[in-house]
Amino acid sequence: MLNPEELNELVAPLRDDLTSGAAEIALRSIGVFQATLAGSEDLDAEEVKSRLSTTARALIDAQPAMAPLFHLGNSVLNAVAAATTAEQVNTRAHEALEQFDRRMCQSAEAIADQVFDLVPPGELVFAYSFSSTVVSSLLNARSRGKYFRVLCTEARPALEGRKLATMLASGGLEVIHTFDTAIGLALPMCRAAFMGCDCVGRPGLVNKVGSWLLATACRELGIPLYALCGTEKFVDDERFFEFEKHERPGSEVWDDAPAGVRVLNRQFEIVPFSHLAGLVTENGILAEKDVEKYVSELTVHDSLRLEGSAFA
Amino acid sequence: MLNPEELNELVAPLRDDLTSGAAEIALRSIGVFQATLAGSEDLDAEEVKSRLSTTARALIDAQPAMAPLFHLGNSVLNAVAAATTAEQVNTRAHEALEQFDRRMCQSAEAIADQVFDLVPPGELVFAYSFSSTVVSSLLNARSRGKYFRVLCTEARPALEGRKLATMLASGGLEVIHTFDTAIGLALPMCRAAFMGCDCVGRPGLVNKVGSWLLATACRELGIPLYALCGTEKFVDDERFFEFEKHERPGSEVWDDAPAGVRVLNRQFEIVPFSHLAGLVTENGILAEKDVEKYVSELTVHDSLRLEGSAFA
Repeated sequence: MLNPEELNELVAPLRDDLTSGAAEIALRSIGVFQATLAGSEDLDAEEVKSRLSTTARALIDAQPAMAPLFHLGNSVLNAVAAATTAEQVNTRAHEALEQFDRRMCQSAEAIADQVFDLVPPGELVFAYSFSSTVVSSLLNARSRGKYFRVLCTEARPALEGRKLATMLASGGLEVIHTFDTAIGLALPMCRAAFMGCDCVGRPGLVNKVGSWLLATACRELGIPLYALCGTEKFVDDERFFEFEKHERPGSEVWDDAPAGVRVLNRQFEIVPFSHLAGLVTENGILAEKDVEKYVSELTVHDSLRLEGSAFA
Repeated sequence: MLNPEELNELVAPLRDDLTSGAAEIALRSIGVFQATLAGSEDLDAEEVKSRLSTTARALIDAQPAMAPLFHLGNSVLNAVAAATTAEQVNTRAHEALEQFDRRMCQSAEAIADQVFDLVPPGELVFAYSFSSTVVSSLLNARSRGKYFRVLCTEARPALEGRKLATMLASGGLEVIHTFDTAIGLALPMCRAAFMGCDCVGRPGLVNKVGSWLLATACRELGIPLYALCGTEKFVDDERFFEFEKHERPGSEVWDDAPAGVRVLNRQFEIVPFSHLAGLVTENGILAEKDVEKYVSELTVHDSLRLEGSAFA
């Protein structure tokens, strides 16, 4: 069972991880719930539930743009809501964690199957920022015998595009890499573009800053841009704008900026559905009209409702 | 009088300067012509002309995207064409250099006067890459009492956007700075955008990579983007695509890229006129239809014609 300091020690690296995608960070968060449950069998059931709530909120606050962290916490809390003993809480929480893990893996597999059909053989495709779903989908297509090349850019300031390039190249894909503003030179050579996604809701999709610029350029050039996102990325209106909380220190962009220069370092932005060719999910390629069903079906646990929200 | 090694020593810093604009590099190139002329009074006139040609071609090749370098060399060579003594060559060449210097300064002043009227008072304006004309225009507007703020981005890989931010801030402007892909977050806060320009011709405008992305975003958001460019940037069709020669080493983008990753580092790109609100020149704000007059009036010296060109 974690005390507040121990919890913070486990959550801090996830908060400061600027180069991993939402799916990857959600999978690593499962371990934080497991640590929360460890040694809790002899406690009061309500005490264990309360600690699970604390862990869930700490993880969600660490990466407020990443919807899978909300879904992970929400599914654990909903699963244990009716449990009356600590043992029941433990069993149901572990089941929920395993189920979430399975869901994420099956989702990634189903998405990869569809990406295989979307990759134009022999062509160059564009990939942006870093997403484990994009990596696994493109490497899956290559290993199933499709030959193509990938163009990607740095993704300043954290440079997670280099991580993407390195992983794709080490998996046998030929990669062309350039800096972000060269998107305008690079995209006309590409026949399709892929990116991950942190969150989907009624207003559109939230992803790493630069996604709007990429999407606008793709639309201008007539290049289809697909967002790869399992339905664990879908959230209701109340939570959609939480990504705006995620502001990093300006010093990560320019550590010795002169007086009179204020440095902005926001990490996420909205891309409207009109700029996308589709959302590739485990349930097929979805369009804007399909989003409603997923966001209206959500059951949000009371302890994860946002205080003072107009939607609460 | 310069020998080839001395010439190369003077030209190399201009070739490797990735953070200065075309006007600034052209003004510094005047010194290379002056060094070429030094001590040439006792030589044969044709020998001096030939050395001036060599200097002109070396400077043009150093920064093939920057039209003012072509105009500087071309005006010197045209000025000395009919000279029959070394003394005449010297006198006429120096006159041409002084005239070019004067023209560039008057041009910057006339452009600044117009930018004063284009800056919306009290608002935020966007500035991209680095251009001495943009800097002098914005600082002029501030010193004439207009209050406004400037938003600019890094301009990777050479980061000349930091140079822009530093110079604007040291001149008393309040600057907000962010990384390049955050253009989509930054632009909606701005009411106008300004950039420099390396070259203008019938197909459009050539400027630092990222300009197309900025221009596309400005058009999408309805923000007027002005290119500040004296008519010393205008070239004919033969020379327009010379900017494509300017490719820098990939190691300047990523110096230890892994095997399987090829790094592209191109520096310039075309922006179509349709994406711009106007070209701010010393002769007023010009549109696409006005370009023809300037590019058809050019007299190109024989030694600056491009070999093997379809237009030669």
